[in-house]
Amino acid sequence: MTPTITVLERSPDGGQGLARDMPVRWALEEAGQQYEVRPVSFKAMKEPAHLARHPFGQIPTYEEDGLALFESGAIVLHIAQHSPGLLPRDANAGARAVTWMFAALSTIEPPIVEREMTMLLERDKVWYTERLPLLDTRVNDRLGQLSRRLGDGEWLDGEFSAGDLMVVSVLRRLTGEDLLNQYANLNAYVARGEARPAFKRAFEAQLKIFNASPKD
Amino acid sequence: MTPTITVLERSPDGGQGLARDMPVRWALEEAGQQYEVRPVSFKAMKEPAHLARHPFGQIPTYEEDGLALFESGAIVLHIAQHSPGLLPRDANAGARAVTWMFAALSTIEPPIVEREMTMLLERDKVWYTERLPLLDTRVNDRLGQLSRRLGDGEWLDGEFSAGDLMVVSVLRRLTGEDLLNQYANLNAYVARGEARPAFKRAFEAQLKIFNASPKD
Repeated sequence: MTPTITVLERSPDGGQGLARDMPVRWALEEAGQQYEVRPVSFKAMKEPAHLARHPFGQIPTYEEDGLALFESGAIVLHIAQHSPGLLPRDANAGARAVTWMFAALSTIEPPIVEREMTMLLERDKVWYTERLPLLDTRVNDRLGQLSRRLGDGEWLDGEFSAGDLMVVSVLRRLTGEDLLNQYANLNAYVARGEARPAFKRAFEAQLKIFNASPKD
Repeated sequence: MTPTITVLERSPDGGQGLARDMPVRWALEEAGQQYEVRPVSFKAMKEPAHLARHPFGQIPTYEEDGLALFESGAIVLHIAQHSPGLLPRDANAGARAVTWMFAALSTIEPPIVEREMTMLLERDKVWYTERLPLLDTRVNDRLGQLSRRLGDGEWLDGEFSAGDLMVVSVLRRLTGEDLLNQYANLNAYVARGEARPAFKRAFEAQLKIFNASPKD
């Protein structure tokens, strides 16, 4: 009955827990659910055995008796629906928490990932210095809107939920950057997420895999 | 009890039904659910009354007694959970359908939208002709992976579900383009979605709003 998730054998983030297994680990820890981990290399992710689990050749995947899932959002939602503490019991509040999960992954994250990929892949291009400010502006627009909605709230909509878990996970990609630092309430929100015991356990578990992985 | 959704007063797609209200309309039609429409202009979307409903100043939003949602994925999931025909009754199959909803919005759509935005906003930049092939490749990678998973299946995982509804909605952004046309099975999959009576009703309803909107 213990589910198995796949994670990166060696995340390129240097152990910061920014890969997409991290929200799944965090959700499992919030749920008090034991789990097994199967590390995969970048090479193995593109091979048939893994593609059968994940058609887009990424991590994480999630397997339990008779069920195989991919997509961090879908996995976190599945965990949240089967354990207390991640979705409010009130149905309407639960639907609003799911709204924040989708907002994290389809509205807040895409411009952040696009900017990251540009910084990673286009730094040597002649257009880099002219394009980067455009991408910063797109990220900043989303952060400003999110900051205004959060205001001085502890979480986005009442109690901590799977919605906060996904939004905090996405914002962590910007930790330490001016873009995020200009919004004190968002920084404090991320810090509240990271201070949760379940987050800390998930973080230590991924760091252990990273530290044990073969070095280049 | 009739829900109200917000839609663009005048979609920039010329009536093709590519704005994000379309999957919500389609889901409501599949569910046989009546709904009201409140058109908003681009200007009104950024004003306080709309930002109270949608913190990122977009459409669609969804309002029913005591519940206000945003994010097309969350709204479609809410509709699917409360009506037959959009989520399989089997819990595991339902979780897999939700996986495809997240895959549509957080894995398949982002590179498609990024390419669209580049074509819209960076066409006059010196780097445009050099960057576009990079974006085409990213979209093509996803389409190839999706095409291989679909194979000769009618839908992605058994019966038509909210997962197919979201994936078809995302792929429609590429209708008529070589990128999509090279995958005959994906083109046929989109055509099967568009042939559904519920899709047709949703399409006609959005076109009616578009045709009634003030012309430039």
